[in-house]
Amino acid sequence: MGKSRLEAFSDGVLAIIITIMVLELKVPHGTDAAALAPLIPLLLSYVLSFVYIGIYWNNHHHMLHATQRISGGVLWANLHLLFWLSLVPFVTGWMGENHFAALPTALYGVVLLMAAVAYWVLQRTIMAAQGPDSLLATAVGSDLKGKLSPLLYIAGIALAFVDARLGGGVYAFVALMWLVPDRRIERALGRSGSGAAGRRGNA
Amino acid sequence: MGKSRLEAFSDGVLAIIITIMVLELKVPHGTDAAALAPLIPLLLSYVLSFVYIGIYWNNHHHMLHATQRISGGVLWANLHLLFWLSLVPFVTGWMGENHFAALPTALYGVVLLMAAVAYWVLQRTIMAAQGPDSLLATAVGSDLKGKLSPLLYIAGIALAFVDARLGGGVYAFVALMWLVPDRRIERALGRSGSGAAGRRGNA
Amino acid sequence: MGKSRLEAFSDGVLAIIITIMVLELKVPHGTDAAALAPLIPLLLSYVLSFVYIGIYWNNHHHMLHATQRISGGVLWANLHLLFWLSLVPFVTGWMGENHFAALPTALYGVVLLMAAVAYWVLQRTIMAAQGPDSLLATAVGSDLKGKLSPLLYIAGIALAFVDARLGGGVYAFVALMWLVPDRRIERALGRSGSGAAGRRGNA
Amino acid sequence: MGKSRLEAFSDGVLAIIITIMVLELKVPHGTDAAALAPLIPLLLSYVLSFVYIGIYWNNHHHMLHATQRISGGVLWANLHLLFWLSLVPFVTGWMGENHFAALPTALYGVVLLMAAVAYWVLQRTIMAAQGPDSLLATAVGSDLKGKLSPLLYIAGIALAFVDARLGGGVYAFVALMWLVPDRRIERALGRSGSGAAGRRGNA
Repeated sequence: MGKSRLEAFSDGVLAIIITIMVLELKVPHGTDAAALAPLIPLLLSYVLSFVYIGIYWNNHHHMLHATQRISGGVLWANLHLLFWLSLVPFVTGWMGENHFAALPTALYGVVLLMAAVAYWVLQRTIMAAQGPDSLLATAVGSDLKGKLSPLLYIAGIALAFVDARLGGGVYAFVALMWLVPDRRIERALGRSGSGAAGRRGNA
Repeated sequence: MGKSRLEAFSDGVLAIIITIMVLELKVPHGTDAAALAPLIPLLLSYVLSFVYIGIYWNNHHHMLHATQRISGGVLWANLHLLFWLSLVPFVTGWMGENHFAALPTALYGVVLLMAAVAYWVLQRTIMAAQGPDSLLATAVGSDLKGKLSPLLYIAGIALAFVDARLGGGVYAFVALMWLVPDRRIERALGRSGSGAAGRRGNA
Repeated sequence: MGKSRLEAFSDGVLAIIITIMVLELKVPHGTDAAALAPLIPLLLSYVLSFVYIGIYWNNHHHMLHATQRISGGVLWANLHLLFWLSLVPFVTGWMGENHFAALPTALYGVVLLMAAVAYWVLQRTIMAAQGPDSLLATAVGSDLKGKLSPLLYIAGIALAFVDARLGGGVYAFVALMWLVPDRRIERALGRSGSGAAGRRGNA
Repeated sequence: MGKSRLEAFSDGVLAIIITIMVLELKVPHGTDAAALAPLIPLLLSYVLSFVYIGIYWNNHHHMLHATQRISGGVLWANLHLLFWLSLVPFVTGWMGENHFAALPTALYGVVLLMAAVAYWVLQRTIMAAQGPDSLLATAVGSDLKGKLSPLLYIAGIALAFVDARLGGGVYAFVALMWLVPDRRIERALGRSGSGAAGRRGNA
């Protein structure tokens, strides 16, 4: 079973998710700066979600690069991940329109958490299909970031009820943690071709 | 005539269908749990439709994998299937927004039924283009699920007028029937490469 | 310059056009048959446009199949065609929501006419890039359908002001004319591989 | 790391951007010419943005054609470009709906400016990944258009506050400057295959 259509379909869904979020930025009626002001929290939440979808696309790209065999389980684990990511535009809009209120900010974190869990399940399913000594298993290694992220999301969800800015800050911190290039990965990649490609783990 | 563009176009349409459904989840105005409550039936119908489009993508993927020749008739039979699937976001929204009322739930079943018929027509058209001893004809075999599904949809449509939850339950049952992996297929696949790839039939 | 990205981009745009048209089918508020009735003209115009975009995708697919060289001019002639097709969802919605009123029906025809002209320009541009003895030039041949369609669109636009049903009928007739398989093409295709692939011309 | 998925994802995002802009053209309620009149500035701004996205797709296509190696930095520089381009539908709608008022027209220019900067950063990042003697570095050369465009955008932004038509005129002029085919590029392309492919620079 080929992985090219899996990649093409995932690329399509992620491209649509990342682009339709901008439809939440409704064109304002006024033409002055005051008309733009209410859009600023929406733009902020859009930027955060754009970066997250970008991270997922990036990691997905690396993980499948290190994948040789696709099973029926992998197809469904992949759709499961896409399902949670498809809810990102909704929670982005709700959080942004309500200026980072408590519940919307917490729900945003829940969707991030579920997507991280779904990514971990997908990674496990792919590794199970490849066998214990696969390229991907070696590449993922201890996967520190992947283990830390869900804990941070849970902290963010709890903090959202204290002060939503704290919750949003935690989500932004996790995104930055994934954005900062990990020199060791690039080195490993340079050494073994696509060997360490999957190590980037789940956001 | 190459099948790669047929796959690419179908992937694109299915990716868009599966993603724009989420646009029906309108961002609520309130910021408390009460504001989310009316969205729960919409979310439920979204999950059901997400799984259905996923099943169709999955089966479409397998069927074309076992296909060698594409004729003009196949292109149009494929567009016919995509037409019915393109109506899924509409009926999903109508059924979800009206909390699984009788007529919307029945119409949802009608679209599922027509999509199943269109899938069957596509399968027949591909098999006719390949000849009687084709990989796909062997793979599809008796196609029990494919024959059972339309009957169940008809039962679901009728039951929707008795109690819409019964209709919805039948649709969910058919989806589960397709989701549960069929070990014999995976075995056959393992034996003959892509041999049994098309057996998954129509949802 | 490779043609694969041109195909991928065109597939993407056409897949989005064909799918976002369904967003014009707004979910009705009522749950009875009366709530669906006003959607019937919209559904009719959606079906007509779906078939047209399908024909264009089909013909585009064939034309590029018989194309070897892509120039900068071809890229822009292709974008010009996509521009006119991108207006199809707008005129479809306007014509459908107004129950095939005179001006919306005429404007629908104008967009079809401009798309046909753009297709013809694209075909000419590709042929110019390939040289006079190209596969495509031979395949297109006298291109009777391609010459007849614009005349019929103009007749349809004029008739829309007499009775919009006449205009809509002409557009439907042109679509049927393109849908009916042309046995000679399939034969020629069978003979020369992809030789006659471009003959389907412009809709 | 393969560049095919980078191209596929970018194609998807650009195809969606170019197509969802048309959703800003809301179907009018009336059926006469007067109902269409308010849409004319929207259509004009749509045409301008369609051409700009077309130019970016075109140049992106050429630049990646001359690219051999993709690094993590390139992936993110590419996403950064797509982010600014994803804001084009929003500023297009705001500028069009307000009949080219001062601030919306200026903001349109700001997004064009930021996209041009992002394109330049992407070009630099790709060149850094390829080494100083790369195909792309040679092809880009002095990149006059790429240096002139940002200056013209800044002029357009300033002029928008004097008379928005002047600002819009400058943006249209820059688009035309990129549209007019550069014979030397086509010649260089003909000579060296894909050698000069990247010279088109940033819009």
